[in-house]
Amino acid sequence: MDKKQLFTPGPTEVPQETLLESAKPVIHHRKQVFKELFRETTENLKYVFASEKSDVHILSSTGTGAMEAAVLNFTSPGDSAAVIVSGKFGERWRDLCKSFDVNAEIIEYEWGDYCKPDDVRKVIKEKNIKAVFATLVETSTGTVNPIRELAEVTSQAGVLLVVDAVSGLGCDRLEMDKWDVDVVVSGSQKALMTPPGLGFVCVNSKAKDALQENKRKNYYWNLKKSQKSLGKMQTPYTSPVNLIKGLNNSLKMIISEGMEAVWGRHQKLSGGAQAGIEEMGLEIFSKSPAAGLTAVKIPSPDKIGESFTKHCEKKYGVVLAGGQAHLKGKIFRIAHMGYYDEMDVVKSLAAIEATLNDLGERNVLGCGVKAALEKFSGR
Amino acid sequence: MDKKQLFTPGPTEVPQETLLESAKPVIHHRKQVFKELFRETTENLKYVFASEKSDVHILSSTGTGAMEAAVLNFTSPGDSAAVIVSGKFGERWRDLCKSFDVNAEIIEYEWGDYCKPDDVRKVIKEKNIKAVFATLVETSTGTVNPIRELAEVTSQAGVLLVVDAVSGLGCDRLEMDKWDVDVVVSGSQKALMTPPGLGFVCVNSKAKDALQENKRKNYYWNLKKSQKSLGKMQTPYTSPVNLIKGLNNSLKMIISEGMEAVWGRHQKLSGGAQAGIEEMGLEIFSKSPAAGLTAVKIPSPDKIGESFTKHCEKKYGVVLAGGQAHLKGKIFRIAHMGYYDEMDVVKSLAAIEATLNDLGERNVLGCGVKAALEKFSGR
Repeated sequence: MDKKQLFTPGPTEVPQETLLESAKPVIHHRKQVFKELFRETTENLKYVFASEKSDVHILSSTGTGAMEAAVLNFTSPGDSAAVIVSGKFGERWRDLCKSFDVNAEIIEYEWGDYCKPDDVRKVIKEKNIKAVFATLVETSTGTVNPIRELAEVTSQAGVLLVVDAVSGLGCDRLEMDKWDVDVVVSGSQKALMTPPGLGFVCVNSKAKDALQENKRKNYYWNLKKSQKSLGKMQTPYTSPVNLIKGLNNSLKMIISEGMEAVWGRHQKLSGGAQAGIEEMGLEIFSKSPAAGLTAVKIPSPDKIGESFTKHCEKKYGVVLAGGQAHLKGKIFRIAHMGYYDEMDVVKSLAAIEATLNDLGERNVLGCGVKAALEKFSGR
Repeated sequence: MDKKQLFTPGPTEVPQETLLESAKPVIHHRKQVFKELFRETTENLKYVFASEKSDVHILSSTGTGAMEAAVLNFTSPGDSAAVIVSGKFGERWRDLCKSFDVNAEIIEYEWGDYCKPDDVRKVIKEKNIKAVFATLVETSTGTVNPIRELAEVTSQAGVLLVVDAVSGLGCDRLEMDKWDVDVVVSGSQKALMTPPGLGFVCVNSKAKDALQENKRKNYYWNLKKSQKSLGKMQTPYTSPVNLIKGLNNSLKMIISEGMEAVWGRHQKLSGGAQAGIEEMGLEIFSKSPAAGLTAVKIPSPDKIGESFTKHCEKKYGVVLAGGQAHLKGKIFRIAHMGYYDEMDVVKSLAAIEATLNDLGERNVLGCGVKAALEKFSGR
């Protein structure tokens, strides 16, 4: 039997109810029936962004498309931006800025490290910074950044804060209104428990003003045009109606659990995963582990390397992610973002133990599972 | 009972088998299981584009996103392009060119008219034209353009021909290799019988060379990067895996019917629709009606206007499209592109007759249906 479960940080497992909802007959994106779905979905999305006052733009794109939209709509050519880089997705902000003629002041940390808001404060003081580009959860290293403290810095300075929360939204705490975060970008395929193909850009009132001043001639990514369509409960071009149907189902599940409970669950899952990993004698990669994702150093990487995740997937159906770029063969990543519960984490730990044993690395069968169960039980 | 059938030119009806295929568990876009799906899907797409030699890029976007990708990858700022405009989607090419600093030489026709290749030949002779942007089927008017003859002009001149076949691919004949069309853009949600959310750019060898010379710093729409990923059976960013699964099912249906049969079926459907409409005493809007779409002048538009399509949808569940821009309330459009057969066309004609009768316009009950049935039966 070929039974697999994704523990990859996007795409993640999607509830069958959501998949079936997205398989309902196609509706037309200019008709009343869609407008009602769209109104409900954007309202539900705002709940997840923890923002009542923002506009949420739903794009037919991946998360990277939504990042491109953010760069193009909140910078003009020649602007300077502070870009926080400590992994592959910070690099993506950097590369997008370079592609679109934004002077990127790079604030760099080692992969696995997190951003220090004081460093950003200094750069803002020294340079004429228009916007700060940050990452809630750096997927490549399993690291959560202190967005709340960053937002204090940008708020005081009157500079836009643009956060990539493709990883993180719906698992790691993020409160747009309360923290005063200006722009948050996300996607459907991670903690929002929906297949890939939808990007989101959530824009608060300070950012809406900035949008009006934007000088670029955007077309597909034109959020000014999208803002006008929002008033009519539409998107400027054909809406990906079936994915939106699916998304709305997953959002309803999140709302029924409650955002505090969702954040708490992920906090608990990462606690259990970390306890299990440490009990096996393995090392957590990140200095600031995310709630939705646990990155782990592969023991004896020269011997085991990429065969670790391959074996685990092939023999146990547990699909972990390996490392990216220079971390290939050096780490593996367990995602528990979205449709995951305590027993899913236990299962992933069990498969990791079995894999370590099979590869002749160490016999820690049951140790990590026991530690996680104890952690979950509150002992 | 609220039973609806879409006769709108995108999105269109999607077979239940395809919807259910897209509701299968999510797979990871960097794993072997996806690479196999991707290889098969791109091969199947090439069959529909009638091209063995091209690269097909699958984008997470609508058709408009694929159009933007074409403009950004096959023009550089300051280039001149000939843009054929005779409706809303020709205007979209024009607006994209303007947004991205391409000098657009507009070759304009009245809405409902079609392109005359000699006009394009003249413009190419007089101006230093890099590319010609054309439309296979102008959705706003139900008009098919003579792409084959256009391709003769561009081939002789050594100029790139870029065709928007978002409407048209898979219903109106288009043979990329045989006709020597360089770039064809399309989307999932029309004759390819898949929900919206996938854009395609199909690139022949002449255009692949042009791609390498492109000077723009594209990111999300970077087809050079996408070309490298194609070799690894991947997309540069997260692939919309579930939509691709669905698409592949619909492509298999097209392949099993056979492309000649598919084109023939649509030709027949439009013949029946036109015969029915004319028998009712109504007038076809286009001077060159498309195979996938029949646009019809609304009789007594000042009296009936937009209530025509509203009544037809509400009372009979037959969802037609109205007119766009200045044609609002002046025409209605019956799409028969993709998952439609003779009896679907008959149903749409019956609902039109009933609507004309209900609105007190004329009693032609059964007339159009009879004419269509006779046409279909070959009489």
